[in-house]
Amino acid sequence: MTTPLQLFSYFRSSSAYRVRIALNIKQIPYEIIAIHLLKDGGQQYLEEYRAINPSAQVPTLVDNGNAIGQSLAILEYLEEQFPQTPLLPKPFLDKAIVRQMSEIINSGMQPLQNLSVTNYLSHHLSISEEQKKQWLSTWMQRGFESLECLFEKYSGQFSFGDKVTLADCCLIPQVFSAQRFGVDLSPFPKTLEIYKTALQLTAFINASPERQADYQP
Amino acid sequence: MTTPLQLFSYFRSSSAYRVRIALNIKQIPYEIIAIHLLKDGGQQYLEEYRAINPSAQVPTLVDNGNAIGQSLAILEYLEEQFPQTPLLPKPFLDKAIVRQMSEIINSGMQPLQNLSVTNYLSHHLSISEEQKKQWLSTWMQRGFESLECLFEKYSGQFSFGDKVTLADCCLIPQVFSAQRFGVDLSPFPKTLEIYKTALQLTAFINASPERQADYQP
Repeated sequence: MTTPLQLFSYFRSSSAYRVRIALNIKQIPYEIIAIHLLKDGGQQYLEEYRAINPSAQVPTLVDNGNAIGQSLAILEYLEEQFPQTPLLPKPFLDKAIVRQMSEIINSGMQPLQNLSVTNYLSHHLSISEEQKKQWLSTWMQRGFESLECLFEKYSGQFSFGDKVTLADCCLIPQVFSAQRFGVDLSPFPKTLEIYKTALQLTAFINASPERQADYQP
Repeated sequence: MTTPLQLFSYFRSSSAYRVRIALNIKQIPYEIIAIHLLKDGGQQYLEEYRAINPSAQVPTLVDNGNAIGQSLAILEYLEEQFPQTPLLPKPFLDKAIVRQMSEIINSGMQPLQNLSVTNYLSHHLSISEEQKKQWLSTWMQRGFESLECLFEKYSGQFSFGDKVTLADCCLIPQVFSAQRFGVDLSPFPKTLEIYKTALQLTAFINASPERQADYQP
């Protein structure tokens, strides 16, 4: 009997949400270990968690004792280790575009909305709630604008063509975050369409924050 | 005769620097098209550049008319399309760790030092030079701390074992940026050792900012 994968996750983390989607789509059994990013001053900072993820962030995937951090590294690992229901197209150029879309979110948007970054802005640079809202919506809007351009060229029912890819695993959680931050998404119709389509699939529904055991309103 | 690859690059961009290293290591012929991020209010914002990269960022790789943005997507593309001198180990778990290291830099460090982000901090949030220095060194230090933990476990002569990987393509430019920002790197001995070793190789030397045709002191 193999040990199931363990995913260290926080219900609201958009990066953990990406991995939950991929695991569900590939129907890989996994166990969630909740790491509360606010409780106890942030459980991600506990020594025993840092031992498996020195970045003190979620998600971390543990496969048979081997820990992997960084959601994109985890997604690529899942794609290689569990090739069923592929989340990357085969042609190299197509794959590159899916990764480009994923990175616009992963390195262009999420890092700027990250809890540790917004905490720094509030505590060290004393920005107001209004300034924080402006900060968030600036980076969200720039990212969605770039994505929308790529969607015009490459999307079908999903971000790249008519199949779910890694780009959708990143997009849906990003839309969720943007809505939570009150960002106006009406200028991004393709994004909203893909979001709506994805949220009809069980894999996406079951990965959503409000379906997690550690969910808090 | 095949058209050589075109790389839209800016000498000082750490993300473009990553791709130059990989192209040199794999000995792939390429032509550099310089995009000056400051001149003319930023040449990356010109309409004709945005047509190939809607994010208005460098680098962009163009292969036979096909444009790819986001440095990590480009690095993965080069690795697949030009398998000579592999920059990823074969075992899936090893590959995942190399990608984890790369993403700590790509999504955990670089986005927070990005020119558009530091400009926003200066112009919209009116932070002082001292506060900007503090901001940069906070994120650099956190990132290098995480990397140093992983290096203790996985590094040899290079970030992962004794061969150059994508992690080194990301690390060397990041050290270059950190030094430029005046970040104290003495707490990160493994990082400095790998940096020194890498800079003895022609592929890294020729990719460095001061060796670029568009270099300005």
